[in-house]
Amino acid sequence: MIRTTIVGGSGYTGGELLRLLLNHPSAEVVQVTSRRHLGEYVYQTHPNLRKHTGLKFTDPDSLTPVDVLFLALPHGEAQRKIQHYANLAAYIIDLSADFRLDNPQTYERWYGAPHAAPEWLGKFIYGLPELHRAQLQDARYASGVGCNAAASILALLPLVKDNLLESEKPIIVEIKVGSSESGAEGNPGSHHPERSSVIRTFSTFGHRHTAEVIQELGLEQVSLTMTSVDLVRGCLATAHTTAREGVTIKDLWHTYRQVTNENPFLRVVKEQRGIYRVPEPKILAGSNYADLGFDLDPRNRQVVSICAIDNLMKGASGSAVQCMNLMLGFEETLGLEFPGLHPI
Amino acid sequence: MIRTTIVGGSGYTGGELLRLLLNHPSAEVVQVTSRRHLGEYVYQTHPNLRKHTGLKFTDPDSLTPVDVLFLALPHGEAQRKIQHYANLAAYIIDLSADFRLDNPQTYERWYGAPHAAPEWLGKFIYGLPELHRAQLQDARYASGVGCNAAASILALLPLVKDNLLESEKPIIVEIKVGSSESGAEGNPGSHHPERSSVIRTFSTFGHRHTAEVIQELGLEQVSLTMTSVDLVRGCLATAHTTAREGVTIKDLWHTYRQVTNENPFLRVVKEQRGIYRVPEPKILAGSNYADLGFDLDPRNRQVVSICAIDNLMKGASGSAVQCMNLMLGFEETLGLEFPGLHPI
Amino acid sequence: MIRTTIVGGSGYTGGELLRLLLNHPSAEVVQVTSRRHLGEYVYQTHPNLRKHTGLKFTDPDSLTPVDVLFLALPHGEAQRKIQHYANLAAYIIDLSADFRLDNPQTYERWYGAPHAAPEWLGKFIYGLPELHRAQLQDARYASGVGCNAAASILALLPLVKDNLLESEKPIIVEIKVGSSESGAEGNPGSHHPERSSVIRTFSTFGHRHTAEVIQELGLEQVSLTMTSVDLVRGCLATAHTTAREGVTIKDLWHTYRQVTNENPFLRVVKEQRGIYRVPEPKILAGSNYADLGFDLDPRNRQVVSICAIDNLMKGASGSAVQCMNLMLGFEETLGLEFPGLHPI
Amino acid sequence: MIRTTIVGGSGYTGGELLRLLLNHPSAEVVQVTSRRHLGEYVYQTHPNLRKHTGLKFTDPDSLTPVDVLFLALPHGEAQRKIQHYANLAAYIIDLSADFRLDNPQTYERWYGAPHAAPEWLGKFIYGLPELHRAQLQDARYASGVGCNAAASILALLPLVKDNLLESEKPIIVEIKVGSSESGAEGNPGSHHPERSSVIRTFSTFGHRHTAEVIQELGLEQVSLTMTSVDLVRGCLATAHTTAREGVTIKDLWHTYRQVTNENPFLRVVKEQRGIYRVPEPKILAGSNYADLGFDLDPRNRQVVSICAIDNLMKGASGSAVQCMNLMLGFEETLGLEFPGLHPI
Repeated sequence: MIRTTIVGGSGYTGGELLRLLLNHPSAEVVQVTSRRHLGEYVYQTHPNLRKHTGLKFTDPDSLTPVDVLFLALPHGEAQRKIQHYANLAAYIIDLSADFRLDNPQTYERWYGAPHAAPEWLGKFIYGLPELHRAQLQDARYASGVGCNAAASILALLPLVKDNLLESEKPIIVEIKVGSSESGAEGNPGSHHPERSSVIRTFSTFGHRHTAEVIQELGLEQVSLTMTSVDLVRGCLATAHTTAREGVTIKDLWHTYRQVTNENPFLRVVKEQRGIYRVPEPKILAGSNYADLGFDLDPRNRQVVSICAIDNLMKGASGSAVQCMNLMLGFEETLGLEFPGLHPI
Repeated sequence: MIRTTIVGGSGYTGGELLRLLLNHPSAEVVQVTSRRHLGEYVYQTHPNLRKHTGLKFTDPDSLTPVDVLFLALPHGEAQRKIQHYANLAAYIIDLSADFRLDNPQTYERWYGAPHAAPEWLGKFIYGLPELHRAQLQDARYASGVGCNAAASILALLPLVKDNLLESEKPIIVEIKVGSSESGAEGNPGSHHPERSSVIRTFSTFGHRHTAEVIQELGLEQVSLTMTSVDLVRGCLATAHTTAREGVTIKDLWHTYRQVTNENPFLRVVKEQRGIYRVPEPKILAGSNYADLGFDLDPRNRQVVSICAIDNLMKGASGSAVQCMNLMLGFEETLGLEFPGLHPI
Repeated sequence: MIRTTIVGGSGYTGGELLRLLLNHPSAEVVQVTSRRHLGEYVYQTHPNLRKHTGLKFTDPDSLTPVDVLFLALPHGEAQRKIQHYANLAAYIIDLSADFRLDNPQTYERWYGAPHAAPEWLGKFIYGLPELHRAQLQDARYASGVGCNAAASILALLPLVKDNLLESEKPIIVEIKVGSSESGAEGNPGSHHPERSSVIRTFSTFGHRHTAEVIQELGLEQVSLTMTSVDLVRGCLATAHTTAREGVTIKDLWHTYRQVTNENPFLRVVKEQRGIYRVPEPKILAGSNYADLGFDLDPRNRQVVSICAIDNLMKGASGSAVQCMNLMLGFEETLGLEFPGLHPI
Repeated sequence: MIRTTIVGGSGYTGGELLRLLLNHPSAEVVQVTSRRHLGEYVYQTHPNLRKHTGLKFTDPDSLTPVDVLFLALPHGEAQRKIQHYANLAAYIIDLSADFRLDNPQTYERWYGAPHAAPEWLGKFIYGLPELHRAQLQDARYASGVGCNAAASILALLPLVKDNLLESEKPIIVEIKVGSSESGAEGNPGSHHPERSSVIRTFSTFGHRHTAEVIQELGLEQVSLTMTSVDLVRGCLATAHTTAREGVTIKDLWHTYRQVTNENPFLRVVKEQRGIYRVPEPKILAGSNYADLGFDLDPRNRQVVSICAIDNLMKGASGSAVQCMNLMLGFEETLGLEFPGLHPI
């Protein structure tokens, strides 16, 4: 049993990590920290875990050494104490945005301030196994992924990998997200009477997750537009691109079949009948799958490619546990078998 | 045209009052106050009113005299300045809980502190026209109603009026409410990921609105239990009582037909087919109707009586405007004709 | 008072028309037809109208002559009997797709069958007053609009009108819609457990409403992608286009201010603070407004332009009544003053 | 590994059974039947199971012998072929209402028709382990539970077990349910525009599940009232009863602690702070827990006792697998460890 600690365990990604690790056959959770809820049972904050664990939140300033440290802190905090954390654990997986970008200049441009530990940026692998499986198997440090970035990257990945796109044409990614994406802290716009039934575009372009898509796929021109809709968990990225001349729907099928065969958590959803013909995030709640879909308009070579995920799982804590599995030599899918619910 | 002012216009009841008064053929709105949003356009807070009014929020300390003053302040504020307000307007309608109870001792028992202006309690008429129509026609001061109280009272009113109940048996009122009931200020439990899809019982008994039901109907034993469900506007009160021996379903029909004939905003909903066979709050959003239903179990004389309202309309601002109409001699339904939407 | 009849009054657009016409100061409703609900009170199907009207559904084969005939039939039916309807009323407004396209060949291409009355296509004005106000003032026949087409056209209209776009670049319109858009008849995918919380892309491209956008704006390359989300009423169209070189955000402001000044039901929503900074359909339920927003990414000249509507109002019945007002010389906004609700 | 078959696998309880059994460490699924979807992959109907199973729906008329047969058929079908099924498997768990009631007369009174196999009624144990654990350990046949009955029984069980109630006073159970309770087949009222945001009382009293509560708890006077609210999975039963004189809140605590200690899937939820102070069904989606709460009004000895469940799990398929575990000598919680999600 490897020993793990979650630093910053009262938020949604921390809670989801805890649920996964408590259920993981090869891991145990030693500590979960929270300043605000210090001394309280974790199930008072994460009520689904009642009767599953007697853990209480502990002080983040009193960490004991463990094998794997998960950092689920607000953006900007991990980078200021990264050496301290590295002294406590051989493996670190940081779910914040602090170590996702490789380049300090790029970081400063998108986050508006210099990075506090730029020398560490190169040590972290971007934690999306579908892109960096081999590297993660040798890694000691992995970053989490931005949920919108993960969905956008996976929507575009098959097309980019097989070089099927005209990359100088606009690459528009329209992202629809649930309310858990903005975290466990409320704000005026998340008050239920205001947030219920919304179709609310909160970022037309310039969202920070764009930087991850550019870095990982090399698509400088990509634009991300983000709209909140009425569900709690879920993220659907719809990418609009232009296929190279000559690309057929058969080529797309070939590419998608291959990529989903190679990756245990990718699935193609493209049915001719039934209710669930395309990727949909609602049935992914709690699961680590990313469901992929695609279509090609022969009229103008426009490609619509789609990725649905649970933003807290494949878009955060699920990918983090998947990284841990790879880094520690476990089966990649270990502890991530929950298939999601239907209906929901 | 009578001149009106809304003191405390940035909350949900204030906004709803404003919508109604802007549309009222015999009233105009002179001022709407808000300390927090001072100087901002009211449509920035109430976005449905964009292009409907150029009003800006004004300072509550700079009120000009008008005909009717609507007070939509947090509970406890109006009673501390009621003489000041009375100097500014011949008619006052206070939507808070400050002047709903007649008796200072009762007020102190339910609200936990002595009333600041006990001599004013007797001057206010409880603002439910279905109970006090004649008095309101002569009144200068009316209180608003608690939304849960209004729904409970109207669910029980026909039965009480015609003395059909065994009043010594338990009188249970189960109330289900939408999220707008708790007001425009967020709290941890109103954060969308936590509030969405809830069935959350927030008061098992002892809710302050109980005092209004006891006062208005004389039912000392009434218990109110309140549960939040997933909608924004709407309140359904289901009362469980025991009929006197010999009471038949025909007697109930007679009583309900009479009460709905006498009151323009009461309707019986008791259909044998179709989707909408019973009172439902969703179709009442924005309307001032209270829809009533009933059933009698011959097995044990249990009566189920139901009232559906929009908590911001019949449960607050709609009843307030209805009171104004009566107090100023207008047609009772003036400015309250919007029938609600279907589907919604 | 002009006399009107609604043919096909049991569906959602028929019900919404009825609500508007019952409230219209210069119109009265003579008949509302429904084969399925023949003889039933209209309020049994449209429960919001209880106590508002004693009308019953009548036989569509027994129409009496009126001034204005509203046809709210399933697509394909009106064209087969249009001469019959024209004998009954001087003015016809058809809300189906039968008379939206001018060209019989275009109709056949998008609808898969020849038009039954091609000679009538040229007699109908496309019923979007923002495009055809002057023509409608002289018209006797107007078509309704496709709700997605209306939102897409209004999202793009200001940019096209002032020739601000590079029209050879991709024009992507991402549309998110509520469940009322598919009509009052259920289907397996509209069953609540399956439809709740969805983000479900039901049309990647090729939706029939595309033909209306091409016809009305002359944008041959436009692609419409449609996704169902969890609300009942509402449609948000987000258009992604490329601005001509040199176009600035100031130019866009100028254009949008002008177009919203010229059109009573268009509003710009582009705020720097508050919750409602961009167009959102939820606050438009029941209202005839189309709210417009825009943004320009100087990095790559991508323009995001947005239009929010209530699909049953501005996207159907509201525009139809607005057309009637123009055709009969009434004030354009008559009977359409309901501003929508907040919160909702 | 025991071998199981699900007869009637395309509905919601069948799908949920399949999810549980595919994940069960000691069971395997041999067949899942569906006439309508014969030959299709089960994941086309239950999209969460894509990549989890290659099973296809098979013909219910071609069953092979197995160890355990789960019958998830529409009410009335299992009883007509029960001998046939008994020839195919040593153990049968029937999730319909066919074998819940012990007495043929009672069955006929509540279901309106004589039972087709009355001699089998006595062979089935009512499948709620919290009531019949010891009997189930020796049983070969178990019935499922009505979801509303299960929630009502568990809400009342601690009070009845310790004889804390005045049983001659009214026993009112108010039940709020999600949309999955009515099954996978749509109806006019389940169409999303009509079902969304409802608070719709569909049964004032007389619901068939009442018979199960009367039988299992001996409370002849119990009344069940059922109201649909807006969520997919979840059932909250709120029981209103009168405590015997002298019963204190401490007595209730004692009783509830005991009953939840004795039953692995019962939990008390009664917190003084935090968001989740009382039982709530939303966090139970996919889990087999029943969360219990209670309160006592010293003013009038009214007791409010609450039970929250996932109607498809503890209210159907979860209890069925729990019964299987007991019947076959497995650990009671095997395969039922999923704790539910937060947020959701």
